[in-house]
Amino acid sequence: MADREAKSDKFMRKVLQVQEAQNRILAHIRRLERETVPLEEAQGRYLAENIAAPHPFPAFPRSGMDGYAIVAADTEKCPGGGEVWLRVVDNIPCGSVSAGAIIPGTAARIMTGAQVPEGADAVVMLEMTETREVDGVPCVGIRKPIASGANVTPVGLEVSQGETVLAAGRKLAAGDIAVLAAFGIAEVPVLRRPKVGVFATGTELLDVKEPLQPGRIRNSNSPMLQALVREAGGEPVMLGTIPDVLDLARSKLQTALETCDLVITTGGVSVGDYDIMGDLVREEAGDMLFNKIAMRPGSVTTAAVRGGKVLLALSGNPGACYVGFQLFARPAIASMQGAAELFLPEWTVILGVDYPKINNFTRFVRARLELRDGSVYAYPAAIDASSVMVTIKDSDCLIIVPPEERGLAAGAKVRAIKLL
Amino acid sequence: MADREAKSDKFMRKVLQVQEAQNRILAHIRRLERETVPLEEAQGRYLAENIAAPHPFPAFPRSGMDGYAIVAADTEKCPGGGEVWLRVVDNIPCGSVSAGAIIPGTAARIMTGAQVPEGADAVVMLEMTETREVDGVPCVGIRKPIASGANVTPVGLEVSQGETVLAAGRKLAAGDIAVLAAFGIAEVPVLRRPKVGVFATGTELLDVKEPLQPGRIRNSNSPMLQALVREAGGEPVMLGTIPDVLDLARSKLQTALETCDLVITTGGVSVGDYDIMGDLVREEAGDMLFNKIAMRPGSVTTAAVRGGKVLLALSGNPGACYVGFQLFARPAIASMQGAAELFLPEWTVILGVDYPKINNFTRFVRARLELRDGSVYAYPAAIDASSVMVTIKDSDCLIIVPPEERGLAAGAKVRAIKLL
Repeated sequence: MADREAKSDKFMRKVLQVQEAQNRILAHIRRLERETVPLEEAQGRYLAENIAAPHPFPAFPRSGMDGYAIVAADTEKCPGGGEVWLRVVDNIPCGSVSAGAIIPGTAARIMTGAQVPEGADAVVMLEMTETREVDGVPCVGIRKPIASGANVTPVGLEVSQGETVLAAGRKLAAGDIAVLAAFGIAEVPVLRRPKVGVFATGTELLDVKEPLQPGRIRNSNSPMLQALVREAGGEPVMLGTIPDVLDLARSKLQTALETCDLVITTGGVSVGDYDIMGDLVREEAGDMLFNKIAMRPGSVTTAAVRGGKVLLALSGNPGACYVGFQLFARPAIASMQGAAELFLPEWTVILGVDYPKINNFTRFVRARLELRDGSVYAYPAAIDASSVMVTIKDSDCLIIVPPEERGLAAGAKVRAIKLL
Repeated sequence: MADREAKSDKFMRKVLQVQEAQNRILAHIRRLERETVPLEEAQGRYLAENIAAPHPFPAFPRSGMDGYAIVAADTEKCPGGGEVWLRVVDNIPCGSVSAGAIIPGTAARIMTGAQVPEGADAVVMLEMTETREVDGVPCVGIRKPIASGANVTPVGLEVSQGETVLAAGRKLAAGDIAVLAAFGIAEVPVLRRPKVGVFATGTELLDVKEPLQPGRIRNSNSPMLQALVREAGGEPVMLGTIPDVLDLARSKLQTALETCDLVITTGGVSVGDYDIMGDLVREEAGDMLFNKIAMRPGSVTTAAVRGGKVLLALSGNPGACYVGFQLFARPAIASMQGAAELFLPEWTVILGVDYPKINNFTRFVRARLELRDGSVYAYPAAIDASSVMVTIKDSDCLIIVPPEERGLAAGAKVRAIKLL
């Protein structure tokens, strides 16, 4: 089938659905090697394996209050019989352990977070106590009955020993870092970040630093892709810009494939005379994954496999480049890192205004989410042509407009991809 | 008033509302210096000034198609009169500019993204044309009338010259990077990232690398704060852990204030005998901002100003430390960077289950958001005690439960702070 596709004329491309195109790419993506990083560098990385708790958490019965550790039964007579007085036999700051056990009639001064001594089964808070000396011995007075277990966090309340606390494929954020620290995991097993080669094709492209020239534009896609690759957890390898010359593209691609885990290009995939990435992919039969997708923008998005590595050739139109990255590159980069969630979240949201545009392809419309009174609304960008660049920055979702709709009315429920 | 507060007994703290506490901190936060960074390092930084477009965008009338640039009026006779044939006088790839103007009866082959030549007012797509030679001259045939302006993106469609394209205080993401690149802004004016000193107090604290010992716990708050500071755009300066010794805390704080823009500590703010951060702040009258807030968790959160710099002393309870960071440290770090949005977004969401717990303080309940059918639900974590650490990782919002409610029923609308 790939042969037939490769031989077909560039105007007669075989159209894939988005999901099929995603699957074709993912089928060729391999998980990268495992490595360990110090905990302080683990933020944003994907966990390589399940983390089982090496001990319960808390690991000891913990006082939840500053006060006195007591035998709760000692306070049973409080309601009728008035105050009970207990001998204070110890003082337990955090980090210390009581020398002996608490027996009925005694108490230990204890701080929040300290280990409740043996024998004690409750902590009475400081504010509910008074103190005095009886025959030279410090004593604590309690007026109210205290329930067994009061203000004591039992061993393993949060996590039992051996329990999986963090699952493989999880992207590590601040709360995960706290868990790893609490369990003493100073070296964290993660998957290597993929090196993602990025280059742009187009004789019209100027570098960001160059002054504007007639008929030319600055290359905004490469810096945008660099930021997007980082956002997805990859390491961008910026390979510059080349003019629309097939030989240059072939050689640049070769370099990129040799040094990177994934190659993303932008430009040169349309049906124009200078669309060299399309030509390049057609040169070698059998390795093209697709060169047409039933979507707007970016229907000409092209992918191929060479030497086991994926080349994703995105449209040069900024909007199409952006959408193509989110739909095809992001899951690939996530998959290489063993991510449990390859795709951005997809939500059902309420269309905030009419969207009359119709199309025979699925359309991914840049839009802005708004939460009002428990409901989520999406507002399409004023101009959502594939060539438009400025609306990318104001979009936090892509509304998925199915093909062959008769236009959508405000209030309609639509699916939307939540952007990060 | 600060005097009176400082002298008050540690059990008799003056209680502030959250917003008042936030305001007191922000009143002492100064914007940091402006610096410029190369575009490739601007991601995640806050823009120091408005960016005005130095030129319209697009800067030239741009072809939206591969095809032929024509004078649209030439095709008026098409519907009745059949095909019109135009002489092809030029070929304009992207990046090139036509040598001459297009006059009636002529056309120029043009690529997507190329500058539409003078005289032409429309582009007809390649797929709608045929070609032949007439007397040795290449000609293009068109069968349907083309409207003036068809497939031509006019100058300034996206942005007019001088228009503000990015506003000061904006956090730069991929879409903003594209805009900066397109306008040739290779050096980006941003505000310096604040250096945020972090240290933990507690004799019970072990380093992440140390084996567990009876009655002691590993310091999970410092690594968590390190990750949170980075998330907020700050540069964490990790100053380690000290036992509960006032002199050590005083000296560590001095070092931190000298080298950092903001100091965050965790632990030692409660009413226990070893709550040294509270004692330290009370030592010097006049510089304490607050030491009690009407909130759970973290009511003992304390803040002071020394030498013009803010010290934020968070609770040592992980849940309280986390919430305290989000409410007080994050806005301070954002404000130093000139952020337009200092606070996390606050949404009205639907409570997914009953929340019966009541309190006389506002409670910030760690919770998980779920989007279903256009509505947003929030589900409180199973255990939301301030001491609990493991639920932080699974929370993406904090439900704000107002004081003196009679418990909240599933389906109630509540406010929630969206976490990042």
